Amino acid sequence: MKFVSQLLQPLLTIPKNAKIKNTEITCKSQKLLLECGLIRPTASGLFALLPLALRAVDKLEALVRHRIEEVGGQRLSLPALTAANLWEKTGRMSEELLKVQDRTGRSFVLAPTHEEAIADLLADVGPLSYKQLPLLVYQISDKFRDELRPKHGVLRARSFRMLDAYGAHASHEHAVTTYHRVTDAYQKLFKDLHLKVYRVAAECGDMGGSESHEWQLPAPAGEDRVPTDGGSVSSVEVGHTFILGTRYSATLGAHCVPPSGPPQPLHMSCYGIGITRLLGASLEALSTDTALRWPAAIAPYRAILIGPKEGSKEWALYDPTRVSELYEELSHTTSLRGDLLCDDRHQMTVGKRLLMADKMGYPEVIVIGKAALETPPRFELRASGRVQLLTWPELMMALAGVETGRATAQI
Amino acid sequence: MKFVSQLLQPLLTIPKNAKIKNTEITCKSQKLLLECGLIRPTASGLFALLPLALRAVDKLEALVRHRIEEVGGQRLSLPALTAANLWEKTGRMSEELLKVQDRTGRSFVLAPTHEEAIADLLADVGPLSYKQLPLLVYQISDKFRDELRPKHGVLRARSFRMLDAYGAHASHEHAVTTYHRVTDAYQKLFKDLHLKVYRVAAECGDMGGSESHEWQLPAPAGEDRVPTDGGSVSSVEVGHTFILGTRYSATLGAHCVPPSGPPQPLHMSCYGIGITRLLGASLEALSTDTALRWPAAIAPYRAILIGPKEGSKEWALYDPTRVSELYEELSHTTSLRGDLLCDDRHQMTVGKRLLMADKMGYPEVIVIGKAALETPPRFELRASGRVQLLTWPELMMALAGVETGRATAQI
Repeated sequence: MKFVSQLLQPLLTIPKNAKIKNTEITCKSQKLLLECGLIRPTASGLFALLPLALRAVDKLEALVRHRIEEVGGQRLSLPALTAANLWEKTGRMSEELLKVQDRTGRSFVLAPTHEEAIADLLADVGPLSYKQLPLLVYQISDKFRDELRPKHGVLRARSFRMLDAYGAHASHEHAVTTYHRVTDAYQKLFKDLHLKVYRVAAECGDMGGSESHEWQLPAPAGEDRVPTDGGSVSSVEVGHTFILGTRYSATLGAHCVPPSGPPQPLHMSCYGIGITRLLGASLEALSTDTALRWPAAIAPYRAILIGPKEGSKEWALYDPTRVSELYEELSHTTSLRGDLLCDDRHQMTVGKRLLMADKMGYPEVIVIGKAALETPPRFELRASGRVQLLTWPELMMALAGVETGRATAQI
Repeated sequence: MKFVSQLLQPLLTIPKNAKIKNTEITCKSQKLLLECGLIRPTASGLFALLPLALRAVDKLEALVRHRIEEVGGQRLSLPALTAANLWEKTGRMSEELLKVQDRTGRSFVLAPTHEEAIADLLADVGPLSYKQLPLLVYQISDKFRDELRPKHGVLRARSFRMLDAYGAHASHEHAVTTYHRVTDAYQKLFKDLHLKVYRVAAECGDMGGSESHEWQLPAPAGEDRVPTDGGSVSSVEVGHTFILGTRYSATLGAHCVPPSGPPQPLHMSCYGIGITRLLGASLEALSTDTALRWPAAIAPYRAILIGPKEGSKEWALYDPTRVSELYEELSHTTSLRGDLLCDDRHQMTVGKRLLMADKMGYPEVIVIGKAALETPPRFELRASGRVQLLTWPELMMALAGVETGRATAQI
């Protein structure tokens, strides 16, 4: 859907300190996401992601997939329902887990992470030969956690999109090698997003293992802190990585057959990135109090085209049919490749639509304004705080040239 | 991951009438999916989708998204956890629903479908103006149903991927118009897959509404029947579509503001396609008893390259390095565009790997065999039951020309 008039984007204006249905507004990314019609709470800590937000999530997932597959990740899908007895065996059953009983009385956990499930799967298909290792598998799926206090919108929700990747190795040394390879992929991902994410040595805690790092993005509403650029700043944990050792494999019987000798428990590693949390955290980090700002590679649309107001002088030459033609040409013959939205709410002034485009944070805004009546016609291209008046061929050239490093994130 | 030796693909041989952990083998698609290492049961009616299966699911989802967005569908994501009171209000609480209580005692349903959730969302953001209608939103996500008797692998599972789309309209007539548009998209999708799916008028049943159709694919293990070309055949319901009327909107308060007069309940429609079920059903319909056969557009890989056996005459010229070079050239300079797998298990004979490629059902098989030692070297291309011996330029040409209508399903 390329026309704003037809988009499901319920705009809101939230008065200061207001509460709205099902949620408390406690940070600016949450407030802006709600006001801009990108998310909508459905219950405490649960959110519907509306079409524009989902485009951003899609682009982010495409980037994550690219980087994790580049280091050999194989995508699979594990059921969200995991047998409760697996969690009992590893001693991780807790109040934070959402539990389900089926009609026969069997108990399941709605998984927040899948170390148990993947070890159980590798036990079931195993033992693996050392020749098949290292193995790196991943999924991107909805995870569940019964947060005592859901907070800050998608930053601390009870259901969230998450990348979880698992390494299986014949030895600790191999696990370390994969760990470095995957954490390098993390660095590349954050570079794709132009986000300064800190790698912080962390406790292994409940997860177990020998080494772990948190990946912290400095942002105002963050509940963690990272030491800095002489002090510390609040930050959001957007990822966590672990060298797990044999805790899960030994407990659940996931083995490999070495070149000689009996089967041994696999040495495992695991890697998480909160997709919806990273999205929220990057908005929290980049946005102003009144306007969303995205990593360019994951803005819901790279550009928006604003046509003239109904009844204006420009309207005579640029009616909806003509605007649609220009839209199609821009959309299909430039590097925008369909990543262009058309604000066709022609009953609204250009100024008002410009304000809304700015609040949404579209990286590039194209306006059919007064100069479009000149000979030759010129069009406004607003990007990076600069306004250029360009003829149509110049505009096409400018958009052909502007690449924001998202070739891999086209959706 | 492009090398078979590194793939997580646990091959099995299932003896006749065997039971394996967590499941009973009751149909050929289930048996073949297990034997070929594509799925793995994790509990009754729950399956891990392994990497090759997930590629097929990805391709299928890309086709479905293309067709539903072509008719104006906007993708969103609704939480799997839906408030239990919504189901009580519409009278659809049942034993088939998996229920969850959170730590505060609030009850949720793990949704098998989202009519309640979407009507609640449209009530929350509404009332919509008639100018925003028709609205068509959709998601593709994991759904849950506590089947009394999970059966036939992914054909009747307790957790499954599903497209669910919802139309919202100002009148019954508009709902009918959208219904025709979306069901036309269904027809195009099934044409993309070269599947003969029957549209069968159906009871609205528990769902409510005024009109509905089941979409039935004839297949041996099907639990339904469709009338045929003088009799009937067993078939699998792969989709269901409904004109819902105002049952959900009136109950949950989802309204639209007409051009004049007070707000009215929205006229809704809904559209489901079981993604994993359609995948399983198409395999059930097309496969032989001993070999998988896919709709070409969703085969996990379009082609597989088989290198020579270690120590053979061909091996002297075509060692793993050389095979990798040929693989890269085929993969990146033909229409295969990365949709090529390399069977690098060089310790196995070509014959054995050919048998496995046939069992997996890859549409095209390229073999580096004896003729690769001729001057000029010739390579085997096996497709559609035909074996051609081609020089390298001829092979490149053949692969450039072979298109299987999946431009939109590239992943």
